[in-house]
Amino acid sequence: MTGKVNLAAKLASFSEHFSPRIVADLNNYKIEVVKAKGEFVWHTHPDTDDFFLVLSGHLTIQLRDRDVELGPGDLYVVPRGVEHCPKATEEAHILLIEPKGTPNTGDAGGERTAVETRI
Amino acid sequence: MTGKVNLAAKLASFSEHFSPRIVADLNNYKIEVVKAKGEFVWHTHPDTDDFFLVLSGHLTIQLRDRDVELGPGDLYVVPRGVEHCPKATEEAHILLIEPKGTPNTGDAGGERTAVETRI
Repeated sequence: MTGKVNLAAKLASFSEHFSPRIVADLNNYKIEVVKAKGEFVWHTHPDTDDFFLVLSGHLTIQLRDRDVELGPGDLYVVPRGVEHCPKATEEAHILLIEPKGTPNTGDAGGERTAVETRI
Repeated sequence: MTGKVNLAAKLASFSEHFSPRIVADLNNYKIEVVKAKGEFVWHTHPDTDDFFLVLSGHLTIQLRDRDVELGPGDLYVVPRGVEHCPKATEEAHILLIEPKGTPNTGDAGGERTAVETRI
């Protein structure tokens, strides 16, 4: 059973960028927080939509045909199969929701693929 | 395809309490905002966990054996099958995530059951 989770406290407990941490479970989904700074990698999730909610700061979700600019309290769902690359000039704090087992780098893989880590 | 969603703007567009509005989709889940004030009804979701994230204000999730007190930035997932009753003394704004088709009143039904409404 998951207890109450304070997102700010969870975010204060680590400093790595683009290294999501699981903070709660919702059925077969993982609820994660992540610190974004710099540019991630272009990738696609062929089997799932990808949920982003900006908690603080500003996040750009680059799509191949446009940029989606998100500030605090903005959410965006990248549809499954749509290539995207998040970037943030200054550190931004993000809530992510994805099916368990979904790699952060989607189909791209590579050295920035994170191990699912629970805090 | 869902566009960018500003949660505060969505919340400013209606005033009813305990009347969730769908603002985005994540696979077969609905992302909703709701304004809570007063006490809802005791109910159980036998088939799904129930996600609450407080965006503003304070929400008490009453369980049969304790109360879970949530402030801004606190999230809590009520496990499937656990009876609960949300209440808020002053108006609180909440983000909800549930499988589509999940009634807000769970197994309790009754007059406070909301029609799924998208804004």
